[in-house]
Amino acid sequence: MSQGNLLYAQSGGVTAVINATACAVIQTCRRRKVGVFAARNGIIGALREELFDLSGLEAAGTAALRHTPGGAFGSCRFKLKSLDADRAHYERLIAVLRAHDIRHFLYNGGNDSADTSLKIAQIARALRFPLNVIGVPKTVDNDLPVTDSCPGFGSVAKYTAVSVLEASLDVAAMHESSTKVFVMEVMGRHAGWIAAAAGLAGTRADDPPHVILFPEIAFDEAAFLARVKATVERVGWCTVVVSEGVKNADGRFLAEAGTTDAFGHAQLGGVGPFIAQLVKTRLGYKFHWAVPDYLQRSARHIASKVDAEQAFAVGKAAVEYALAGRNGVMPAIKRVSSTPFKWKLVPVPLTTIANVEKKLPRSYITADGFGITPAARRYFEPLIRGEDTPPYNAKSGLPEYATLKLKLARKKLPAYRIADK
Amino acid sequence: MSQGNLLYAQSGGVTAVINATACAVIQTCRRRKVGVFAARNGIIGALREELFDLSGLEAAGTAALRHTPGGAFGSCRFKLKSLDADRAHYERLIAVLRAHDIRHFLYNGGNDSADTSLKIAQIARALRFPLNVIGVPKTVDNDLPVTDSCPGFGSVAKYTAVSVLEASLDVAAMHESSTKVFVMEVMGRHAGWIAAAAGLAGTRADDPPHVILFPEIAFDEAAFLARVKATVERVGWCTVVVSEGVKNADGRFLAEAGTTDAFGHAQLGGVGPFIAQLVKTRLGYKFHWAVPDYLQRSARHIASKVDAEQAFAVGKAAVEYALAGRNGVMPAIKRVSSTPFKWKLVPVPLTTIANVEKKLPRSYITADGFGITPAARRYFEPLIRGEDTPPYNAKSGLPEYATLKLKLARKKLPAYRIADK
Repeated sequence: MSQGNLLYAQSGGVTAVINATACAVIQTCRRRKVGVFAARNGIIGALREELFDLSGLEAAGTAALRHTPGGAFGSCRFKLKSLDADRAHYERLIAVLRAHDIRHFLYNGGNDSADTSLKIAQIARALRFPLNVIGVPKTVDNDLPVTDSCPGFGSVAKYTAVSVLEASLDVAAMHESSTKVFVMEVMGRHAGWIAAAAGLAGTRADDPPHVILFPEIAFDEAAFLARVKATVERVGWCTVVVSEGVKNADGRFLAEAGTTDAFGHAQLGGVGPFIAQLVKTRLGYKFHWAVPDYLQRSARHIASKVDAEQAFAVGKAAVEYALAGRNGVMPAIKRVSSTPFKWKLVPVPLTTIANVEKKLPRSYITADGFGITPAARRYFEPLIRGEDTPPYNAKSGLPEYATLKLKLARKKLPAYRIADK
Repeated sequence: MSQGNLLYAQSGGVTAVINATACAVIQTCRRRKVGVFAARNGIIGALREELFDLSGLEAAGTAALRHTPGGAFGSCRFKLKSLDADRAHYERLIAVLRAHDIRHFLYNGGNDSADTSLKIAQIARALRFPLNVIGVPKTVDNDLPVTDSCPGFGSVAKYTAVSVLEASLDVAAMHESSTKVFVMEVMGRHAGWIAAAAGLAGTRADDPPHVILFPEIAFDEAAFLARVKATVERVGWCTVVVSEGVKNADGRFLAEAGTTDAFGHAQLGGVGPFIAQLVKTRLGYKFHWAVPDYLQRSARHIASKVDAEQAFAVGKAAVEYALAGRNGVMPAIKRVSSTPFKWKLVPVPLTTIANVEKKLPRSYITADGFGITPAARRYFEPLIRGEDTPPYNAKSGLPEYATLKLKLARKKLPAYRIADK
């Protein structure tokens, strides 16, 4: 029996280093002489039989994926429902895999993707189609269980810490006669991993960020304002990092609570401008706010070397696992030691990953709820170590990111309509 | 007669490279054996006689200024009024300079600072105090006349172009089932230099940014929406860069026009979220928006090498001009050629700089008002060339920015109260 081909698909929000995983997948398949396809725009493309045939992809372009942000083949937000509810989709997927002799399916995503991967493995068994399904970790949210960290997180963490440090130097210089409070909103709707990483910017007392607002800690307006006021009075200025997922005591997102206009329209702006306005209204300080949004998760130019290496490593391991006949597992990062930082990959069952969200431990947050502890620093610091600067074009001054000439494989099946996409 | 000491002061918004100018000033003074002071928080500190004595500043810290963002001695937003209106301030300033035997005053800022520098030169003459006043160019807004560009601008331009490129790769990967329109707000209240630099991110047809909104072009809602719609239909997604200074046909800032809530409060958020919401309301596309704010002007980690070199060069030249007895001039960057890029510094009278704003030429904006022309590209491209990566700490993963131990010179005059600061 042929070892069959391998299909790689990206799922959910992309990261600065997910293409490093793709690079490793392609290069490992080539070395192992396995045909490799990538689904266009994730599982949607797999259902539509839109598969990029990567056999002929030029080596230079493939190598450039290693340092290119975004998702080279496209990703999607599309969750397959239960096997019963979405049976047609699952059966179609198996038909597509069968048509292209695909025996290995690598799904590069988060908790949802792990769940989908398990269901695909299940339907393949039910339909007696030999398939190895491997989950490949990826998420800037860092909320996958079991694995020490998630590829993509280290780079957004580094971007965030560096940005807080730099912007705070600006505020420090201007505070006497201008901005006194700087608010930066970071991603993390459900967990405060990115917000916590911002804490790495400061190492000494009164270093920024002076206040971090975590989704894990209910927002206490009085305590927050008191903290900001005390900081401005002592330091002269104050940097606040706020996670988009911060909620009030009622469990409502702050950015949504009481910020609709007279017509009931949700007000423009996120929690960053909301917090900044609160400071202005209640304390009278001049403020600035920043919302880097996608900039933070695509900032390949300031990627963490450790993160880029881990992203590459999980791609390579996933192919090796599949070719070794493993099924329903994910390469997880196991921290062997923090000092010196050592890690290895271990296969873990997707059943332990699917639909589980890893929250920021309370022990990583200081007792007052506004900062990070030494334990957090021990965890986070190794993840942002090292730079992995992309090559730059000497004429344009821009990073030389991959621009692949992708070719769709010839379709073998009738067209398929994803009605509810 | 002794050659006297030199006082250096920073003014207005700081940049990623203004400290490179400071570094050059200090190093050049030392080489020329001139005593050097820096005013704390700009002209405010000069009035208060808060002068950092930089004679004993350690060489390593001084050298680290070369790659440290923010303003190491503090800056301020404080404009001295006319000689008549603020005569007490001007006379106090001369008294402070006299008390510390300061014969050379370097004022590092924009148009306002050039104006202030001229007035200081004038009062010194009137009071028969021998003083060489030199303006040193600095502003991310790039709106100083005569000089080819302003130190600080090339780095914000590089940050902006790289960020647009990276975030757009993210959107491209996600557009099928998620964000279709990404809006990034950039600085530039009066001129669209930074917005235009964003255009460097794209080189081929349909590359991002697909739409740039300039302060120089009155916002035409219908034309804008038509352009976004056509782009999404053709490309699948659309990146919009909007300058904070964009105005409607009535000359009102877009971010302020019609965005108050029922209570008359100005709505949270700037023009970026406003444009994003407009796209959502009128076209129904899923959107994301980013406002990097201070991140863009402090991003030393992605500074332009050309910009850092020019920032250093103007600092060195300013000291040389002063010691050569020049007065009332500024080192301006003269572009000798674009291909290859060659430039030199020439002294220009501050009278040609003060209070003049250089607008983005209409010839740099495409006829449709939404993009940049080849002429703009020829101007901008050299300014973002080269990287000038700061050293990173191997343990923390953060840039090693200068943390100076600054020492205030002993005061020789009675305290002075700046009532209207």
